[in-house]
Amino acid sequence: VTRIIGWDVGGANVKAALVTSGHDVEPLVLERPFALWREPQHLSAVLEEMAAAFGPVEAMAVTMTAELADCFASKREGVVFVLDALAAAFPHVHPFVYGVDGQFRSVEAAKRETDRVAAANWMASATLVAQTIPDALLVDVGSTTTDIIPVVAGRVAALGRTDTERLRTGELVYTGLLRTPVCAIVRAVPVRERRCRTAAELFAITADVYLWLGRIAERDYTCDTPDGRGRTRAEAGARLARMVCADAEWLGEDGITAIASYVADAQARHIAAAIRQVVQRLGKTAPRLAIVAGHGAAVAETAATEAGFAPRTMEIGGTAARAAPAVAVACLLALSQGKSA
Amino acid sequence: VTRIIGWDVGGANVKAALVTSGHDVEPLVLERPFALWREPQHLSAVLEEMAAAFGPVEAMAVTMTAELADCFASKREGVVFVLDALAAAFPHVHPFVYGVDGQFRSVEAAKRETDRVAAANWMASATLVAQTIPDALLVDVGSTTTDIIPVVAGRVAALGRTDTERLRTGELVYTGLLRTPVCAIVRAVPVRERRCRTAAELFAITADVYLWLGRIAERDYTCDTPDGRGRTRAEAGARLARMVCADAEWLGEDGITAIASYVADAQARHIAAAIRQVVQRLGKTAPRLAIVAGHGAAVAETAATEAGFAPRTMEIGGTAARAAPAVAVACLLALSQGKSA
Repeated sequence: VTRIIGWDVGGANVKAALVTSGHDVEPLVLERPFALWREPQHLSAVLEEMAAAFGPVEAMAVTMTAELADCFASKREGVVFVLDALAAAFPHVHPFVYGVDGQFRSVEAAKRETDRVAAANWMASATLVAQTIPDALLVDVGSTTTDIIPVVAGRVAALGRTDTERLRTGELVYTGLLRTPVCAIVRAVPVRERRCRTAAELFAITADVYLWLGRIAERDYTCDTPDGRGRTRAEAGARLARMVCADAEWLGEDGITAIASYVADAQARHIAAAIRQVVQRLGKTAPRLAIVAGHGAAVAETAATEAGFAPRTMEIGGTAARAAPAVAVACLLALSQGKSA
Repeated sequence: VTRIIGWDVGGANVKAALVTSGHDVEPLVLERPFALWREPQHLSAVLEEMAAAFGPVEAMAVTMTAELADCFASKREGVVFVLDALAAAFPHVHPFVYGVDGQFRSVEAAKRETDRVAAANWMASATLVAQTIPDALLVDVGSTTTDIIPVVAGRVAALGRTDTERLRTGELVYTGLLRTPVCAIVRAVPVRERRCRTAAELFAITADVYLWLGRIAERDYTCDTPDGRGRTRAEAGARLARMVCADAEWLGEDGITAIASYVADAQARHIAAAIRQVVQRLGKTAPRLAIVAGHGAAVAETAATEAGFAPRTMEIGGTAARAAPAVAVACLLALSQGKSA
């Protein structure tokens, strides 16, 4: 039996999954909202605390997207920082770092190939899907971004390797369940049944939208609020009202709901458009089944359905699909060690 | 001779104009970037310091938009806060507060009618234009927002009174020269001649766009940078590159210029669309001349030209057109006092 921690170190959340290979045990998942750009020096302590909750382990597998945080001048700097934080947190473990080439490597090797290990978490999830479902489209809606990865004939058929390439191919859509500014989704919303331009300010985010609509609970609102106020439905409503320079009182319950619904629909439509873009180039080999994952699996489901797909939840046990990449890197490391053993 | 200070108290900038009535002297203008939402308690001191630079005055005229800042739970709270800060700063002056009805009132009366004095600065500028140019479209592009106000037959012909109404009519576009997040303007930009989705993050703002393009200087970049780094062209370029999750190195000079130009064009197009919306309902009475003002007068000029207007700079002396509402409230108070004397 080997106990492996899989890490998915993001810029706004750190996720860890404990996978026990050789036993049919559901993965344990831990998530920690962590604004890396604000206090990068604490990353090491956060990793240590999270690992302590799992007890002793034999190995660690790592993937990351934190290198994009704007506290780093370059991606290289970001990748090296995360790897150094891991080494500082776990001096006696040698983590295996996953790359977009589907290979694991040592921390030292990863530092020499920062391009390969930056933003490889989607590859981990898609590779895990490909183990059991030969033809599928993985749609993983996280707190901040969405991955749309085709699996064709048992292989990951993504075209993009870097985030920029992936933004161009539609495989990455920078939109998510919680942190997306409303002003990045819509330039106008309905107000009393007429089109109204929106404020180009970070007044409200998608967490406010989904909280108002009752699609997430207050405890799911794990990121900062844009105005530093609370996470109640009334406070979320006030933030949404401010998007059209109005008060919640003037707009009323229905007026705010009209705005929130419109933004939610627009976000699903954007994801659906990216799904169509990804699928289009696959022609006859395009999958028909969508595997939805992430905090925003419900949003992924709506978008996939809109794009004509039959959606199905990623089946990796319990709530693990919320943190698919963390579970995936751990499972993939277990598999690769099983093979090499 | 009467010396009057005109105040335009915004959420990100405070502007003051000294107008000397009875003499043909150009107005003096002071501007102070001030992030009200971060330290509202300092507003009073900021006002005091700015007024001190002008020396003794006989009267003060006030307009504001600061009440929208998200440190205030409601607009009423914001208006009252600004008025209290004025009273604290100038205990021996009784400022006159301008309203969207074109009337001045005392601080006490303004507190009872917060709806009328909130966001009335556009009315001041347009009323001043109407004094000399009977038919014109005022296009004032500020650091954060743009006002598009028609003057027809010597009268301000705006339809909206509140900011929300004005966002609906196109008379207010929440887009500006400095503070507008790039992600609020475009959802995709060209990268190596292909469409690339953008990051929905506050990675870059319009100040980065115009600085990179050489249309503003470093000293004009008066707001905070999104990442807390510097205001050099290279740093602005790095922020723009991050909008497509890329490095400046990978994109290269031309790659960044392609993104910046595309964003600038899109912003001008949005303003032009709002100009068309405003003009459309005026039919045959629509003005043909656009009076451009604000920090972003050059952007206003581009947009007005695109919408088929002949643009002309607002002629209120020197650089005063950059702070048109502050100059305007002072001039309008001088005029109203001249009449009543």
